[in-house]
Amino acid sequence: MHQQLDAPTRNAANHVALSPLSFLKRAETVYANLPAVTYGDTRRSWRETAARCRSAAAGLAALGVKTGDTVAVLSPNIPELFELHYAVPLLGAVLNTINTRLEPETVAYIIDHSDARLVIADTALAPLLRRAFEINGRDLPVVDITDLPDHAGFGQTTFDDLTAHPPMDWALPQDEWQALALNYTSGTSGRPKGVIYHHRGAYLMAMGTVAGWALPPHPTYLSVVPMFHCNGWNHPWAMAIVGGHIIFTRDIAPAKLLAAMGVHRVTHLGAAPIVLQMLCDSPDARPFDPKIRVLTAGAPPPPAILEKASALGLDVMQVYGLTETYGHISQCLWQEEWDRLPAGARAEKQAQQGVAFPMVEDIRVVDRTTGADVPRDGLTQGEIAIRSNTVMKGYYKNPSATAEAFAGGWFWSGDAAVVHSDGYVQIRDRLKDVIISGGENISSVEVEAVLYRHPAVLAAAVVARPDPKWGESPCAFVELRDGAPLTEAELIAFCRDRIAHFKAPKTVIFGALPKTATGKIQKFVLRAAARDLGPKS
Amino acid sequence: MHQQLDAPTRNAANHVALSPLSFLKRAETVYANLPAVTYGDTRRSWRETAARCRSAAAGLAALGVKTGDTVAVLSPNIPELFELHYAVPLLGAVLNTINTRLEPETVAYIIDHSDARLVIADTALAPLLRRAFEINGRDLPVVDITDLPDHAGFGQTTFDDLTAHPPMDWALPQDEWQALALNYTSGTSGRPKGVIYHHRGAYLMAMGTVAGWALPPHPTYLSVVPMFHCNGWNHPWAMAIVGGHIIFTRDIAPAKLLAAMGVHRVTHLGAAPIVLQMLCDSPDARPFDPKIRVLTAGAPPPPAILEKASALGLDVMQVYGLTETYGHISQCLWQEEWDRLPAGARAEKQAQQGVAFPMVEDIRVVDRTTGADVPRDGLTQGEIAIRSNTVMKGYYKNPSATAEAFAGGWFWSGDAAVVHSDGYVQIRDRLKDVIISGGENISSVEVEAVLYRHPAVLAAAVVARPDPKWGESPCAFVELRDGAPLTEAELIAFCRDRIAHFKAPKTVIFGALPKTATGKIQKFVLRAAARDLGPKS
Repeated sequence: MHQQLDAPTRNAANHVALSPLSFLKRAETVYANLPAVTYGDTRRSWRETAARCRSAAAGLAALGVKTGDTVAVLSPNIPELFELHYAVPLLGAVLNTINTRLEPETVAYIIDHSDARLVIADTALAPLLRRAFEINGRDLPVVDITDLPDHAGFGQTTFDDLTAHPPMDWALPQDEWQALALNYTSGTSGRPKGVIYHHRGAYLMAMGTVAGWALPPHPTYLSVVPMFHCNGWNHPWAMAIVGGHIIFTRDIAPAKLLAAMGVHRVTHLGAAPIVLQMLCDSPDARPFDPKIRVLTAGAPPPPAILEKASALGLDVMQVYGLTETYGHISQCLWQEEWDRLPAGARAEKQAQQGVAFPMVEDIRVVDRTTGADVPRDGLTQGEIAIRSNTVMKGYYKNPSATAEAFAGGWFWSGDAAVVHSDGYVQIRDRLKDVIISGGENISSVEVEAVLYRHPAVLAAAVVARPDPKWGESPCAFVELRDGAPLTEAELIAFCRDRIAHFKAPKTVIFGALPKTATGKIQKFVLRAAARDLGPKS
Repeated sequence: MHQQLDAPTRNAANHVALSPLSFLKRAETVYANLPAVTYGDTRRSWRETAARCRSAAAGLAALGVKTGDTVAVLSPNIPELFELHYAVPLLGAVLNTINTRLEPETVAYIIDHSDARLVIADTALAPLLRRAFEINGRDLPVVDITDLPDHAGFGQTTFDDLTAHPPMDWALPQDEWQALALNYTSGTSGRPKGVIYHHRGAYLMAMGTVAGWALPPHPTYLSVVPMFHCNGWNHPWAMAIVGGHIIFTRDIAPAKLLAAMGVHRVTHLGAAPIVLQMLCDSPDARPFDPKIRVLTAGAPPPPAILEKASALGLDVMQVYGLTETYGHISQCLWQEEWDRLPAGARAEKQAQQGVAFPMVEDIRVVDRTTGADVPRDGLTQGEIAIRSNTVMKGYYKNPSATAEAFAGGWFWSGDAAVVHSDGYVQIRDRLKDVIISGGENISSVEVEAVLYRHPAVLAAAVVARPDPKWGESPCAFVELRDGAPLTEAELIAFCRDRIAHFKAPKTVIFGALPKTATGKIQKFVLRAAARDLGPKS
């Protein structure tokens, strides 16, 4: 008789495709009159927002967008881009948000590689798009987002034309595994790869974020994380679950963000460590009370920045993830006993990447030569490997890279980490950033953390320099605060006082650091520069 | 090229069966040293609890329990029953928690119908189990839970024998649709039906509860909802997501619960309205500060009880659901504008069943004669129909009842409700409880709510009595507080002052009300009694 436990079958009543669309459909009723979006003088309720998303979908359908089509978007964080996170998937189409800070060649590559059917572009980005089309030697249909009156687009239609359509009805994908978004990796070396998300993954990412970040009902969320990064860490979908109020600023200069945080009484935001640092360093910074809850990711934040953020009233939780994992998959979940630690030690704890989010099945740190988990000693490095429903379907049109990423049924992150005795994971480096000196592994992140403790240091990056004796030695590139006097010898001595001598930089180069379009320090440029320096004599 | 968006396929890295087992696996590391369970002098961390669950699973495996087997349990809410919520599914087996308050005949029926392979029973319930075996004319293997030293069991092994095994490793079901639990309906009329839950549903129920109830990290949860009701509304699984601390009392007398709430600083609990009323009426009740967050369900709570609960510091959210929906699927989500209403009107709002939980796709109220949604007028009644991943697979070995429940791709609740202008659903009655008088539908729940407003009324139920003129008329059965003097005429007049005259009871019978083993008033008994009264002359 036991088989009858499995006999009753799936039907429309008891099996619903998991999709973030369901969150907005619910929000339309449940949070109907609550604010969803504020942007300058524009303020819309969840009912209005849902109707606009359904109208935009109808407008895109009228342009011929169908299930499985890719829709590329070039836009800063403004309500239109947020709305497209629902409008495009509502058609079963695939949202391809493109990093607006990329050079035209890469934008051209992505538009071509993604097989985009049309491009929706903020008119301020029309010149970038025009240039990308020229590089590709072909145009696509363009929809202009006319947010700034003083910029002319070259589209055939506007976003406002889309939302003028009568709202289409809600519809879910036939299959929750259906593609939802296509997000290109930042590609610090080589061509960016197209990471495919599906509806199931985004649903679980959003649910797991609510649980893991303990989002309360109706947070006021400042949209800082670019929606072209992992769809803003999937927050546009999570906010519909809890009826959040999303604040958009377009201009993310520190003074603007700080003003918005005060005026709108922001309760939550996500931001890269570099943004936190800019907020902390801004002359406009005044401590927030009540505290603002902040997720930070993208690079391990130096403890010094975490200490400053805490003083500013930012309750920072460090999270870790990759484009391939929809954003954050681990979190530095605070342990009460850490409250009793001194500030510096607390910041050290906070700088760990921590433990799995609730929707993540497994995070291991593996010695790839043996295939075994590294010991929980806080010292032995291995590669972070992940299992989760929030791991990508694969790379678009790249079966070999997909197979490599999924070797043995795990997603291999390419990040080197250690595991502490309490099971908390801490990243040491991108594997390729590890410096091997005299047979010892030196974590560039660890050396950078020491450099950031020096008050004169604004930004720092450490890479390997060829060394005749040790093979490699740590070479630091350091950007100083305006007018701060500091010599190479002083800074090296500062480091040697604080970490093992073999880990202290043997070379320090002062100057502005090269950054990617997304604000990440371009280590590959610095690695080349260090190689060009030749062996340290 | 578009098909390549779907080309990358599922693998162990990117597709994980949704199962509540994953929550405990994570809690074992993430909340390792935090308290999971407190019961008298017993206090165990999440690491210890997880190890015990894995050991109990190994012990059950040693007894021959395999994937697809059903394991029946007769136990009050104590840690062992909680642990079985993980131990049994870890084997791929199916947990069948049986209502301990049922009469032996029904227990016998369930044990037989569920095809249980063995029964795990608290020794205090050994006589009930022995009687059930006698009725069935056959025994099953028995595992004793020896919680009370003064009760002798007749099992071949004990729960402590199970947990003496070395912990087995974590394992997920092959398929998230695999059966997880078998819960029998309360069966107020006819035989109880066996409702099948699956891993996917329980995972989403738990996640959606965290989001919908806005559970913070580490709530202190008092286990009051019997785990034999919808697996305690799936809270045993939700608590592992947030690292909750679960307090067990075994004895749920109001004084014991109130004491536990104070001593352990309980922050959250779930309880039927009758339990809330007993708490409010207890001489030991002192207002709680900070407030305790309470989910209530099982019957629409009369507004008068909600008002009292509020005065006691209980922040009550009314939810609605059925055994077939894993428990709650709608919630009376509080709208800020209601804060400005007077207390009585606030309690009226709070008594609504509200809107969908985040994991629920759709709740409609349908006129089954036309198949159309009823208008949002707060008046027109229809039947509640549900679509959700938290709707059962079906009824065990009952394909006809399953087909009827899922007619047209919706789950039909059998509950009559109205929809207010804001989309909030309010139950009027079980369909069969609607009183049709002179062609007008009278909601027994509405009349009962008025009766509960009278200070002398302890409990009330309204059913149809045959009426020569009107077809049916409302007949109230009322249990008075000790020594409260009240006449039929006074109570009818009290009602006529407050609702339409045709809705006021035409008959009032005073006396103790018949209740089911679960504390629900047995309306079918009262309906029979009202029929026996004959037509109102």
